[in-house]
Amino acid sequence: MVYLTRRMRFNAAHKLWVREWSEEQNLATFGKCANKNWHGHNYDLHVTVKGEPDPTTGFVMDAKKLRDIIQAEVIDDLDHSNLNLDVDWLPKDLQPTTENVVIHIWRRLADKVNDGKLHCVKLYETENIYAEYLGE
Amino acid sequence: MVYLTRRMRFNAAHKLWVREWSEEQNLATFGKCANKNWHGHNYDLHVTVKGEPDPTTGFVMDAKKLRDIIQAEVIDDLDHSNLNLDVDWLPKDLQPTTENVVIHIWRRLADKVNDGKLHCVKLYETENIYAEYLGE
Amino acid sequence: MVYLTRRMRFNAAHKLWVREWSEEQNLATFGKCANKNWHGHNYDLHVTVKGEPDPTTGFVMDAKKLRDIIQAEVIDDLDHSNLNLDVDWLPKDLQPTTENVVIHIWRRLADKVNDGKLHCVKLYETENIYAEYLGE
Amino acid sequence: MVYLTRRMRFNAAHKLWVREWSEEQNLATFGKCANKNWHGHNYDLHVTVKGEPDPTTGFVMDAKKLRDIIQAEVIDDLDHSNLNLDVDWLPKDLQPTTENVVIHIWRRLADKVNDGKLHCVKLYETENIYAEYLGE
Amino acid sequence: MVYLTRRMRFNAAHKLWVREWSEEQNLATFGKCANKNWHGHNYDLHVTVKGEPDPTTGFVMDAKKLRDIIQAEVIDDLDHSNLNLDVDWLPKDLQPTTENVVIHIWRRLADKVNDGKLHCVKLYETENIYAEYLGE
Amino acid sequence: MVYLTRRMRFNAAHKLWVREWSEEQNLATFGKCANKNWHGHNYDLHVTVKGEPDPTTGFVMDAKKLRDIIQAEVIDDLDHSNLNLDVDWLPKDLQPTTENVVIHIWRRLADKVNDGKLHCVKLYETENIYAEYLGE
Repeated sequence: MVYLTRRMRFNAAHKLWVREWSEEQNLATFGKCANKNWHGHNYDLHVTVKGEPDPTTGFVMDAKKLRDIIQAEVIDDLDHSNLNLDVDWLPKDLQPTTENVVIHIWRRLADKVNDGKLHCVKLYETENIYAEYLGE
Repeated sequence: MVYLTRRMRFNAAHKLWVREWSEEQNLATFGKCANKNWHGHNYDLHVTVKGEPDPTTGFVMDAKKLRDIIQAEVIDDLDHSNLNLDVDWLPKDLQPTTENVVIHIWRRLADKVNDGKLHCVKLYETENIYAEYLGE
Repeated sequence: MVYLTRRMRFNAAHKLWVREWSEEQNLATFGKCANKNWHGHNYDLHVTVKGEPDPTTGFVMDAKKLRDIIQAEVIDDLDHSNLNLDVDWLPKDLQPTTENVVIHIWRRLADKVNDGKLHCVKLYETENIYAEYLGE
Repeated sequence: MVYLTRRMRFNAAHKLWVREWSEEQNLATFGKCANKNWHGHNYDLHVTVKGEPDPTTGFVMDAKKLRDIIQAEVIDDLDHSNLNLDVDWLPKDLQPTTENVVIHIWRRLADKVNDGKLHCVKLYETENIYAEYLGE
Repeated sequence: MVYLTRRMRFNAAHKLWVREWSEEQNLATFGKCANKNWHGHNYDLHVTVKGEPDPTTGFVMDAKKLRDIIQAEVIDDLDHSNLNLDVDWLPKDLQPTTENVVIHIWRRLADKVNDGKLHCVKLYETENIYAEYLGE
Repeated sequence: MVYLTRRMRFNAAHKLWVREWSEEQNLATFGKCANKNWHGHNYDLHVTVKGEPDPTTGFVMDAKKLRDIIQAEVIDDLDHSNLNLDVDWLPKDLQPTTENVVIHIWRRLADKVNDGKLHCVKLYETENIYAEYLGE
């Protein structure tokens, strides 16, 4: 079993805000992340699949094909988007934390990646904060 | 003459949009950067001062003091902000490209940095695009 | 279950030296790391917690709170310290290898991190050497 | 149980090509990676061993010794080599994908690393593609 | 005057070899870089243009347009190529050192970059070796 | 004229301390950098030479030879050293700031680098602080 990872990037805006809460409570909880005019990040996405290398091609999965799937299913929607407003497959009431976004990227990719088996989705919000989801 | 650089970071939202242009013309010029709902970046800022090291302290400028000036004059305003809407010293009609933002960070810092002499401001928008301004 | 990681940094001096051994034996075992006048590193620390994202905030654990705990419990003591001499919770007879320091950072954090559950502590001594501890 | 990793680098040429296939089929499958005149990469190798730190030295394994083993068994053969032609322990009919190379580096190291126990071999082909093998 | 840089990447094979010299002399001069079966690198290219930001768009030069020019004029030819054999605009008798390749990338781009003025081409062969050319 | 840079690394301990000052004044000026038990860094050194590529070898200067000179003249002395105590060519009364160390590395290398001409020495103390010296 070999694990193969493809890294891709997207840039997006978001804010953390609970609609049912007062501005005061939002600022107390989320600090500057609750800025009503949004802020943004260069997100760095690592998608890992697992499997045995094909005896002829040596591929667990063609990395170009994996890239194309991630591009079509995830990056095309997320890049230069507003994570709170623009992405159909991110529920409108979902808090777009790195933790929540990584789960929804997993769900988006899980049944599209059928040459290998999706093993892990890792998402860096900054160089200092990242989240990983293994589907469990 | 030694050049001393301090690197700091901020996260912000922005969009590129010319008010006098149609949506069509904006999208043709700026592509996804014109998304009306904003997008954002992890900006990476390098501020360089020049001077001779003080014979006693060995400092061109105290890097902690340089950090505090950049934090107070630049980062406090830019971090978790919307560059089009939130920053007093970025003119409202200014296109917040990396090129324009780096010029205004220079102007903001030039007369605050008086232990050394401001030499260069460099700003990374992503790991692939950055702008430098030397005040000339 | 999502894994959330916060990265922080500290700079410290140390040396590797067994008091019961001759200088010869120390140098034979530890090489330049046994320099009696110390050497040092920029340490890079990754602390990972695991849990389910809170349905309202989207947080496994508030990353700012995680940062504050690591700062108060670990970084305040380790940054600009001598790992052999200055840190109360590193036993005086402990060899301050990356392997040993990472275990003691785990012990320091394990019961302070009570919103999530501590999953992994990873410590880079240089870009080429790092150690991980999962509490087992 | 602590996991200790040593990172090393090598530069090599390779191509992906199935001898039994037509040029057409090779190009359709491998794209530019099938260039008959080769291309190459700066490979980045992470070797992880696991064990308990020695109570005296604090080492899971002496990182210098681990480096010397990786250098002698792997890097000396792979650095500035052609992965299809030059390396005795890479079978001539093996497709030198990252997935296949990482398995053979594991096999090369597994019984040489006897102070700790080999846990993982991770190989970056580029900053965007990497493979990991845990011996299972 | 603002300096705007776009970073791109390519992977290529090469060898250093003087046809008029014996194998002995080649190995004595170029070491492992003279391996007759080639080796390769992940090259990292930084192209810098200079100019004043356009008062409407805020662009010294549209970074997307700069990227497209570099892709068409440089990357399409160099990526997954053999620098000694495959590239029309690298003379066949040219030693493909980083120093020489960076000069020829400059010549390739100088009159194509007409929105700004080409200022510098920087090429990393590895993370430890890079060359810069400013056209003088 | 092409600029060729070789990057190398060393790990060292140091402290900032003026002997003529009280502990109070030292702590007020240097903060945690004045810890009497030392602290340390992973230093990252970039040495740039300039010249025209040799028409036969394509070298401004053989990068392996440049590496060997930097190793012998600089790294052998600085690596795993105490910058205040251990290095003959760093004056005992010199404040080992990045600014001062970079000047002395320049002086150490200037007349040893005679294939090219020394152009710049750049030294990172951390990823956030670096100094450059061009000999003027």
